[in-house]
Amino acid sequence: MQDFLSIHPEVAAALKAGKAVVALESTVISHGLPYPANVETANALEAAIRAEGAVPATIAVLDGRIRVGLDADDIERLAQPGVRKVSRRDLPVALAQGADGATTVAATMIGAALAGIAVFATGGIGGVHRGVETTLDISADLEELAATDVAVVCAGAKAILDLPRTLEYLETKGVPVIGFATDRFPAFYTASLPLPVDGRCDTADEVARVLRAKWQLGLGGGVVIGVPIPDDAALDAEAVEAAIAQAVGEADAQGVRGKALTPFLLKRMEELTGGASLAANRALLLNNARVGARIAVAYAQQKG
Amino acid sequence: MQDFLSIHPEVAAALKAGKAVVALESTVISHGLPYPANVETANALEAAIRAEGAVPATIAVLDGRIRVGLDADDIERLAQPGVRKVSRRDLPVALAQGADGATTVAATMIGAALAGIAVFATGGIGGVHRGVETTLDISADLEELAATDVAVVCAGAKAILDLPRTLEYLETKGVPVIGFATDRFPAFYTASLPLPVDGRCDTADEVARVLRAKWQLGLGGGVVIGVPIPDDAALDAEAVEAAIAQAVGEADAQGVRGKALTPFLLKRMEELTGGASLAANRALLLNNARVGARIAVAYAQQKG
Amino acid sequence: MQDFLSIHPEVAAALKAGKAVVALESTVISHGLPYPANVETANALEAAIRAEGAVPATIAVLDGRIRVGLDADDIERLAQPGVRKVSRRDLPVALAQGADGATTVAATMIGAALAGIAVFATGGIGGVHRGVETTLDISADLEELAATDVAVVCAGAKAILDLPRTLEYLETKGVPVIGFATDRFPAFYTASLPLPVDGRCDTADEVARVLRAKWQLGLGGGVVIGVPIPDDAALDAEAVEAAIAQAVGEADAQGVRGKALTPFLLKRMEELTGGASLAANRALLLNNARVGARIAVAYAQQKG
Ligand SMILES: [Mn+2]
Ligand SMILES: [Mn+2]
Ligand SMILES: [Mn+2]
Repeated sequence: MQDFLSIHPEVAAALKAGKAVVALESTVISHGLPYPANVETANALEAAIRAEGAVPATIAVLDGRIRVGLDADDIERLAQPGVRKVSRRDLPVALAQGADGATTVAATMIGAALAGIAVFATGGIGGVHRGVETTLDISADLEELAATDVAVVCAGAKAILDLPRTLEYLETKGVPVIGFATDRFPAFYTASLPLPVDGRCDTADEVARVLRAKWQLGLGGGVVIGVPIPDDAALDAEAVEAAIAQAVGEADAQGVRGKALTPFLLKRMEELTGGASLAANRALLLNNARVGARIAVAYAQQKG
Repeated sequence: MQDFLSIHPEVAAALKAGKAVVALESTVISHGLPYPANVETANALEAAIRAEGAVPATIAVLDGRIRVGLDADDIERLAQPGVRKVSRRDLPVALAQGADGATTVAATMIGAALAGIAVFATGGIGGVHRGVETTLDISADLEELAATDVAVVCAGAKAILDLPRTLEYLETKGVPVIGFATDRFPAFYTASLPLPVDGRCDTADEVARVLRAKWQLGLGGGVVIGVPIPDDAALDAEAVEAAIAQAVGEADAQGVRGKALTPFLLKRMEELTGGASLAANRALLLNNARVGARIAVAYAQQKG
Repeated sequence: MQDFLSIHPEVAAALKAGKAVVALESTVISHGLPYPANVETANALEAAIRAEGAVPATIAVLDGRIRVGLDADDIERLAQPGVRKVSRRDLPVALAQGADGATTVAATMIGAALAGIAVFATGGIGGVHRGVETTLDISADLEELAATDVAVVCAGAKAILDLPRTLEYLETKGVPVIGFATDRFPAFYTASLPLPVDGRCDTADEVARVLRAKWQLGLGGGVVIGVPIPDDAALDAEAVEAAIAQAVGEADAQGVRGKALTPFLLKRMEELTGGASLAANRALLLNNARVGARIAVAYAQQKG
């Protein structure tokens, strides 16, 4: 395994000592945010995690290895154009070809689990796409959540998705969806969705106890921790929905699909909201990193 | 694991001695039947299993522990209003919160597998809901059958479901569907459905040999053993279908969905059939418990 | 396990010595090709694998055992009418009943994995059926590819299927789809489909490195290696599509479904193309066997 996996010494030392570690993904760097906001945000996320007393471990594929924990120059390199997007299915090819790759939620969960990291903070998970009855387009993130023992702290699923059907899929797969200080599933840019979560936890300590119960009993797979976007950063729900409808319609009309779909939609959202979606995205990423770090600290304390 | 799992001494002793044990679920107590029919039926199921020479193990969550094997006062407690319904996704939260919970087919399979019980008798499994093309509503029971090594003795899937698509889903997942003395998949309240099963077994011994082959070869996951409702308890197929159609239509019109859907439909069925569905439900539950006990006895003998 | 699994001495010796072995399926013998073309083709596939320096292991169920590696009389026996088709769900019943059975892609993968064979050559995998939004008919082959560590060398999925949705399903499940010397997913009888693959490998050695990366890292499950049909054997894409549309329409009108569907469609394709589909099928099977053997040889060398 050492051929294809490399854990940063600081991260390895923290894990060995039973300290709190929080994984971060790299698709947000390479495909989620424009330059230089992507580099600034990646560094701010790491700093926010450190400020809460945990060690950040941004995960990516570099030179055909899964790297768990990056340095500043690695992040800069991932922010350049041309880095491929790597999900579970892409990992073997990227590793065999010695390539660089930005890891999706699914591939980041894999790297985190291989390293022994229990908590991962991101913006929003992938899910069931609108129009799935025609396309069968469902993100591999959902299957990863069913299989891999990592808690994913997020603002729900990406707003461009079909949220009710994403929650049904997670229910079928037995994945707990926890609301962090909320009874409702966060809707990424807004906190107003009427869909209920499976359970509510009001503190990081409560979340950590849920994780401990799940994995101690041998119930494999991940957990979704839905954290609403902070009030002062939330967008207007109707305006968001209108922009999404327009962006989805354009993608459909232009035949954009597959790996290109999510980046296309995120970019159009930014344009259609006059940059407001970008600001909201950064705010929720930072908030999730902080909450993730608190959960990781609580989890490390309970384990010890 | 001992924090979250508690096996009744009688059940533990039987398992240790290699004796036959049959698991039973608790959702039928808390959400499937009205009081006091639920308590009476739960006790009658246990008695029927004992009469066939096996030990019953009703499974539930009590005080934040999965309890395998209950006493009479536990069953009475589960029959009171307000007990939450617990499927795979709900287990970690229920355990962490120290709650009580009635286990679905999926969660009961988990408890049975953790305790080492191979046979579980219930009324009907969950499955693909009518209208799935719109809702993506598919019971977690089907994924549990794909993953967890427990044989589920039932009268097919709950009649309110889409049975042809439920069978397709099980086929895709590689779950054997056995007809017990029938070539057709039982339709819960009636024995008249035209859908074929994958294989037919005419005796408990034949079923036990199938289970032994599957698990000895390392082919993980469950098996559905479809047992037709006894002739004298079966309802008229057309009347049942008309009642289901009406109940499903009402649920749709009233926006009933999620966890509330199945209890709503079962209650409406009871009202629409003038109580006949309740009597049929009890008859098939008892029949399945007896058949399950015979299979468990045969399986224990073959293993020894 | 020895009760239900029997490995041919030549195959066992090759595996023990770390030599290249290629698995072959038996459904193509019993249900895919007419007699005596089925026997001739089965023997030709084994010879082609030997000519490349690997040992063939045709897999079937005989007398209630999974047999890995057959003799000439076994193949003759599987070519007779009345052999049942055995997929994952059918294995336990077939074994318990001491039956004979022709193994599908899914069941052949199971036999290969139990024996420790990494490479399997076939014609085309099963997949998502046209009309899935109504039927939910999805081959168990796709779930097997998600779960079982075998590389399947094929000319894509059977052409009668819905190829775009088959690729979406594989993506959701994290299964790599590799194009062998192509950027496009082969369309069985033709090499002209516009759908992209996840990655391209131009040599057997490159494919073997992908397999090694995947399994060395503990990323379980299979890989699809799509090999285009040789140019001189390819059929006209429009004629193929017209024949498929007609055959699918007839199956629908006649209510053909379940296990009977694929054999019905393949037989009608043969009739509608005046035998051309049969010749193409044999050509691609032979080609896949050769490519599979080269990959197995490269994989054995890299492992050593
Ligand atoms: Mn997709
Ligand atoms: Mn549901
Ligand atoms: Mn099918």
